[in-house]
Amino acid sequence: MITPLTDYSRLCIHTMTTKPWSLAETIAGFTEAGVPSITVWRQHLETYGPEKAGQMLRDSGLRVVSLCRGGFFPAETADSRQTAIDDNRRAIAEAATIGAPLVVLVPGAVPGMPLDTAKGQILDGIAAILPDAEAAGVRLAIEPLHPMYADSRSAIVTLAQANDAVSALASPWVGVAVDVYHLWWDSALEDEIRRAENTIFAFHVCDWRTPTRDLLNDRGLMGEGCIDIRGIRGMVEQSGFTGAIEVEIFSNTYWAEDQTAYVERIKVAYQAHC
Amino acid sequence: MITPLTDYSRLCIHTMTTKPWSLAETIAGFTEAGVPSITVWRQHLETYGPEKAGQMLRDSGLRVVSLCRGGFFPAETADSRQTAIDDNRRAIAEAATIGAPLVVLVPGAVPGMPLDTAKGQILDGIAAILPDAEAAGVRLAIEPLHPMYADSRSAIVTLAQANDAVSALASPWVGVAVDVYHLWWDSALEDEIRRAENTIFAFHVCDWRTPTRDLLNDRGLMGEGCIDIRGIRGMVEQSGFTGAIEVEIFSNTYWAEDQTAYVERIKVAYQAHC
Repeated sequence: MITPLTDYSRLCIHTMTTKPWSLAETIAGFTEAGVPSITVWRQHLETYGPEKAGQMLRDSGLRVVSLCRGGFFPAETADSRQTAIDDNRRAIAEAATIGAPLVVLVPGAVPGMPLDTAKGQILDGIAAILPDAEAAGVRLAIEPLHPMYADSRSAIVTLAQANDAVSALASPWVGVAVDVYHLWWDSALEDEIRRAENTIFAFHVCDWRTPTRDLLNDRGLMGEGCIDIRGIRGMVEQSGFTGAIEVEIFSNTYWAEDQTAYVERIKVAYQAHC
Repeated sequence: MITPLTDYSRLCIHTMTTKPWSLAETIAGFTEAGVPSITVWRQHLETYGPEKAGQMLRDSGLRVVSLCRGGFFPAETADSRQTAIDDNRRAIAEAATIGAPLVVLVPGAVPGMPLDTAKGQILDGIAAILPDAEAAGVRLAIEPLHPMYADSRSAIVTLAQANDAVSALASPWVGVAVDVYHLWWDSALEDEIRRAENTIFAFHVCDWRTPTRDLLNDRGLMGEGCIDIRGIRGMVEQSGFTGAIEVEIFSNTYWAEDQTAYVERIKVAYQAHC
């Protein structure tokens, strides 16, 4: 039996969900709507810099759940791989500065590079930044993406593969992010969520629309699609996860609408379908 | 070592690849270009009816590799499932009439229906049409689709799941279709192709473009994307497959071009990348 969500204490929204808003507008919009938590995308720090943004976030009382996103480790040359590692070190520093206890890693992929090669480079990249994460007290979550992103965004396309990476890295600072959009189709999902016991560091929700009109920016609001979101929440909770439920929706449709009204729709959908 | 393709003896092109052409134009275009084999989509029979189309195909000397497509078994009501079964019986009859020894089955899915429920209905549907297939001497190939189609087109999204279905049905008339576009991302692919020994009834090629601009109709010509097509051909041949190499490309871009020139590009890409 999955307990319904009767308040908003676990609700978190990504700044990318309300992309048209600046960070200042997002902070104002979320606090006015009673959304207690925020996940910050790095581009929303750019206007202010991490110090100023961190001060704004602390002043707001919002809880910062994570910084999105690090990762994108595979690259053709050693120089480019080092550039990615350096950028991930900056992401960890930014997370510490704004008070985010977690950086979400989108693993990365290079078109035409064998996926096993890319996976090896992902492991090497995470291993390289682990000392920084530990020193900063910032955890890292490997996010497996949907197989439709295997060409250029993630060589890790199942929770099984992300769990394998976590096992290989064997650090308490590395876990997984479970995003229903990326993983709902996988018949191994329940088993792999069980295997991820106590290493699920983040849980992302949205829905899969039929038809999906765009590979990147046509995610649905919870309840608009075919994903059994509540069922998957039950699985991650059985596996020890009690953290924030993060609404991460990339949608050309919703970005074109009034964002204040949209946040209210998100709240309704959150209680009805998560 | 994978033997390069130095002639066109195994080349087959789907009528959907050159969709703007009528069946008559397709037959003329393929024979003029020296393409020896054809897979016919059912909508390209509509103008002529299967008897007339079969006569045209026999007169042309083209070898008919398969009829696309049956399947789409899952549905909310028993009546709708029976309608799907009846339609698949017609597809088998049409295949026999036009001289196609194989019907490719796209399994089907219903948005919101649990994938396991849909899989059960797919097995029931194929079991129902098996006597027709055997009586007509027409084989059936279950085609696992990419997970991005799990909402509405196929509850079977890996070769492992298709192999499971073949095992469950346990008939020499049922095998799988391996389409590189749907399966290239799967780390279990090589093992599952090995497991499918002598039950691979069809092999479809195209490429995965980066970026992919449309979920349905932006497939690439072989060599334009990230798929190791020749590597996968090697795997299916190791597993006993010696049949046609079928070019199945849905592409708004290519459909807008001159189809005669396009067939010549296909021939070049076939030898260079398959």
